[in-house]
Amino acid sequence: MTGVQHQKWWGWGVEGITFTHEDKPKLAPFVMEKVGIDLNAPGTPPPAFEDLKVPASLLDGDLASVLRAAVGDAYVGTDDMDRVVHTYGKGLVDLVRVRASDLPRVPDAIVYPADEDQVRQVVDAVVAADGVLIPFGGGSNISGSLTPPVDEKRVVVSLDLGRLNRVLEVDEAAGLARVQAGVLGPDLEDQLNSRGWTTGHQPDSFRHSTLGGWVATRSSGMQSDKYGDISDITRGMRVVLPGKVIALRPLPSTSSGPSVREMILGSEGRLGVITEVWVNVHRLPKNREIVAYLFPTWAAGLAAMHAITESDASPTVTRVSDANETAFSLSMQKPSKGLAAKAGPILFNVLERRGWDLNAACLSYIGYEGDDDHLKYEKSIVGKIVRKHGGIKLGKGPGALYDQKKFDTPYIRDFLLDIGALGDVSETAAPWSKLMDLYANTVRAATDAFAELGVMGFVMCHLSHSYHSGACLYFTFAFPPSSDVAAEQIEQYWVVKRAIQQSFVDNDATISHHHGVGTDHAHWLEDDISSAGTEVMAGLLRAVDPGRNLNPGTLLPAHREW
Amino acid sequence: MTGVQHQKWWGWGVEGITFTHEDKPKLAPFVMEKVGIDLNAPGTPPPAFEDLKVPASLLDGDLASVLRAAVGDAYVGTDDMDRVVHTYGKGLVDLVRVRASDLPRVPDAIVYPADEDQVRQVVDAVVAADGVLIPFGGGSNISGSLTPPVDEKRVVVSLDLGRLNRVLEVDEAAGLARVQAGVLGPDLEDQLNSRGWTTGHQPDSFRHSTLGGWVATRSSGMQSDKYGDISDITRGMRVVLPGKVIALRPLPSTSSGPSVREMILGSEGRLGVITEVWVNVHRLPKNREIVAYLFPTWAAGLAAMHAITESDASPTVTRVSDANETAFSLSMQKPSKGLAAKAGPILFNVLERRGWDLNAACLSYIGYEGDDDHLKYEKSIVGKIVRKHGGIKLGKGPGALYDQKKFDTPYIRDFLLDIGALGDVSETAAPWSKLMDLYANTVRAATDAFAELGVMGFVMCHLSHSYHSGACLYFTFAFPPSSDVAAEQIEQYWVVKRAIQQSFVDNDATISHHHGVGTDHAHWLEDDISSAGTEVMAGLLRAVDPGRNLNPGTLLPAHREW
Repeated sequence: MTGVQHQKWWGWGVEGITFTHEDKPKLAPFVMEKVGIDLNAPGTPPPAFEDLKVPASLLDGDLASVLRAAVGDAYVGTDDMDRVVHTYGKGLVDLVRVRASDLPRVPDAIVYPADEDQVRQVVDAVVAADGVLIPFGGGSNISGSLTPPVDEKRVVVSLDLGRLNRVLEVDEAAGLARVQAGVLGPDLEDQLNSRGWTTGHQPDSFRHSTLGGWVATRSSGMQSDKYGDISDITRGMRVVLPGKVIALRPLPSTSSGPSVREMILGSEGRLGVITEVWVNVHRLPKNREIVAYLFPTWAAGLAAMHAITESDASPTVTRVSDANETAFSLSMQKPSKGLAAKAGPILFNVLERRGWDLNAACLSYIGYEGDDDHLKYEKSIVGKIVRKHGGIKLGKGPGALYDQKKFDTPYIRDFLLDIGALGDVSETAAPWSKLMDLYANTVRAATDAFAELGVMGFVMCHLSHSYHSGACLYFTFAFPPSSDVAAEQIEQYWVVKRAIQQSFVDNDATISHHHGVGTDHAHWLEDDISSAGTEVMAGLLRAVDPGRNLNPGTLLPAHREW
Repeated sequence: MTGVQHQKWWGWGVEGITFTHEDKPKLAPFVMEKVGIDLNAPGTPPPAFEDLKVPASLLDGDLASVLRAAVGDAYVGTDDMDRVVHTYGKGLVDLVRVRASDLPRVPDAIVYPADEDQVRQVVDAVVAADGVLIPFGGGSNISGSLTPPVDEKRVVVSLDLGRLNRVLEVDEAAGLARVQAGVLGPDLEDQLNSRGWTTGHQPDSFRHSTLGGWVATRSSGMQSDKYGDISDITRGMRVVLPGKVIALRPLPSTSSGPSVREMILGSEGRLGVITEVWVNVHRLPKNREIVAYLFPTWAAGLAAMHAITESDASPTVTRVSDANETAFSLSMQKPSKGLAAKAGPILFNVLERRGWDLNAACLSYIGYEGDDDHLKYEKSIVGKIVRKHGGIKLGKGPGALYDQKKFDTPYIRDFLLDIGALGDVSETAAPWSKLMDLYANTVRAATDAFAELGVMGFVMCHLSHSYHSGACLYFTFAFPPSSDVAAEQIEQYWVVKRAIQQSFVDNDATISHHHGVGTDHAHWLEDDISSAGTEVMAGLLRAVDPGRNLNPGTLLPAHREW
């Protein structure tokens, strides 16, 4: 046993935790209405692991010996479960493929180094053997960055960072922590919180993603408005390359040329293995509150988020859902009791009398942190903006509930797969001036794709991160495919996903705000950063890794590989 | 005439504006005490331009024809004044060399393209001719990035962006502006201010530096605490490379792989010519105030700046000078009249009675912007922090004076040269935990260097930009060299400058916070970003520019060139 915990081989999170609709009486009617699926019909659970067909490992004796000498016999895994767990991330296509035993290329070995020195030995050994090295953190990637290329003939080694999971140092006088890259979100925060500190970084994947993974994919957390994206939080790092180690000391800012730090950020394993990261850490706030608001329309909600960003307030979270996502959220509520059960209908009556179309209403969450006075000051500014845009305050109760449940969403996808529906997400960012068109055109693109497939589909959206010049829009979509054959389901999925991604680049938005490029989004990279930009990126990767040993196939469109 | 204005060939700024001590009665005694120089003794002005020996241009007829066809005859300059103006930036060494007619390698031609298409033609022509291309903005660089390598045998073309000086577009709904890269600071702000907008970017070089230059060197302005460094302000750009153009659309944030935007930032001409930049712009603030404070010690001042950064306040400027710089500032005051003349001595008496050592007092400026309520709120938070650290408020008067004079400082260097003293600056950034040691060790390094040279030297410092995890320390030093031979003066200058830069990297600080690498700081790049980091940077540059045609010699230490 390596001591490293992994997610389920077939889905999100750990065994024993699954999504259920039993305690959410409004969900089944909602799902029936929107995508025509009966949540109470018997589902099809994932197959037994024993039924998978896992190809034999190509690891040869020479490399195996070197790897075992480097990390110890117990820390070179070649059993089927280990290899399957390291084959895929948790994107929709990953989940469909693994359930269908679609395993054309599986890592030949998993190594679990204990420290940076062992990482160096592994990297050097794999490159010396002209093998392929794929760094692996929490395995939560949903852009296809973790999967060996189908036609890869060389030995493929997955380097699992799970044993590098310690906070090594907290520089309390600077608000910086030096942390090993393989630490999972909860473990990181436990170690920091116990000393009074936090990174404030809370991506949806928090429970099953690692610091190194966040850096490698340019992650963003829901409190990014205050704490910054991981690119802001990351102040220094160590990165193992063949024969050498990049060491970037923690710096608040620097003008030392093209930023090597910003080259490693988002490099998805192609520029080496991140072993340590210096991150900004903050004292745990005295107060922390998420307050819910309701806006009469999506346009009003977006305009309010923009106004908050431009105001003298600086909340930690600015989030607003479109009408579809708001309706979905309401359908996910547990039955209320007593007064709370009556409060909702009463409020809705009041709003209807005020002329609201409740089908257009949009739910919003704003986060606050700081001293008592500061919360009061900020809530006063935000309150005025909300009222100016026709919104109302729902209060702390729904905000606290949202805060408790915020990491549970990914479990729904496996539940949907059981009942025969495909659900996934695509997110992007664009200037404020483009958001309304981006939204309308992307919803239309998804809707048209559903029509093309002849399926009932559902698409919803929220604004999740705000900046001076723009924001992130996060789309979720689901539909029951018209086939139960995995390959056909995947093709249908791509009809929708392609339509959404194409809409992003056609509407002045990026291919991804925080999920990364991987293999899934590489096709649109040139639309995003231009052909010349992609050439420059390819030139960098080639200069560092001429033999294409480091996670080849991710990031670049195929014609830019060498 | 090209219509492009340049600085003096021999110094900072425009003809007719010079520094004078006549209206500053305390300055001459101060300078006499600190460095033993008599400001009233007759100085040595720069030589007449006609006395310079300018080597002949190597521009051949073929390339000249192509360049003239590209930009028009009037926009290819080969006269000596034009070539000398484009030979150097405004670093101390640059100034000493040009005054001494030390012109071993001068650009062979200056081209002034009118638009991006002409830039493309020039870049392609120079690279096709295996020439060297050096982009030139305002010529304010003080890190040696503008000077052709002494031993460069190929034709050297300086590409002056001065005609690309327009704000092309303001996206008012997003707070973004698309701006040509050659625009000077005042021109940019005039164009934006007239429409109600500002970038908020105010580097010391503001009047004589360009947007493209800011991007190419990772500039930072004194209001960076609010508006961000230029790396934050820059959201998209266009960059001309041989045969292609990188086009990065404006995005608030993105996870599209290693950041090409962050590769161009700081690239100092080695990754192409920046022609357009999308920048964040903000509505002109309703109120803007700089308030002066005084702290009893440097340690108290630093601690207060850190506490402000960690507080719920978010001022635009956080600046505190050490005791030496405070004394220098006081010596620069014009004579006060009436009540103001009495206020200073009265205040100082009060402070002495309170136990202050006035020789240790440190002057601070904090900037505020926003609505009335916001200024009141922020000043209340800052006021408490100042008092907690033993400081007192001096008020808006000195703050306003500082704000008026903030761009005048660079003129002093030429004045010092006239009277036979060398003055220059070195700035850096480090975590808060390192600042006190960094400061003490750097002051000691400079002082030791003065002793080694046997000269009376003066070094002073201020904290100029604050971040969550650290701050920028900005050192200024001056001394009268013991030789009037330019080459010996430069060698003496380097004894001091080297000591300071070495102290930076030895004390966990970066080689430059916002002046860039150039040729002056390249020697320490490996200490800053590690040998492997420098290799990665070199790999990128080589991939983009295998022929070393784009501003070769800047950024990298010599042994990393190819």
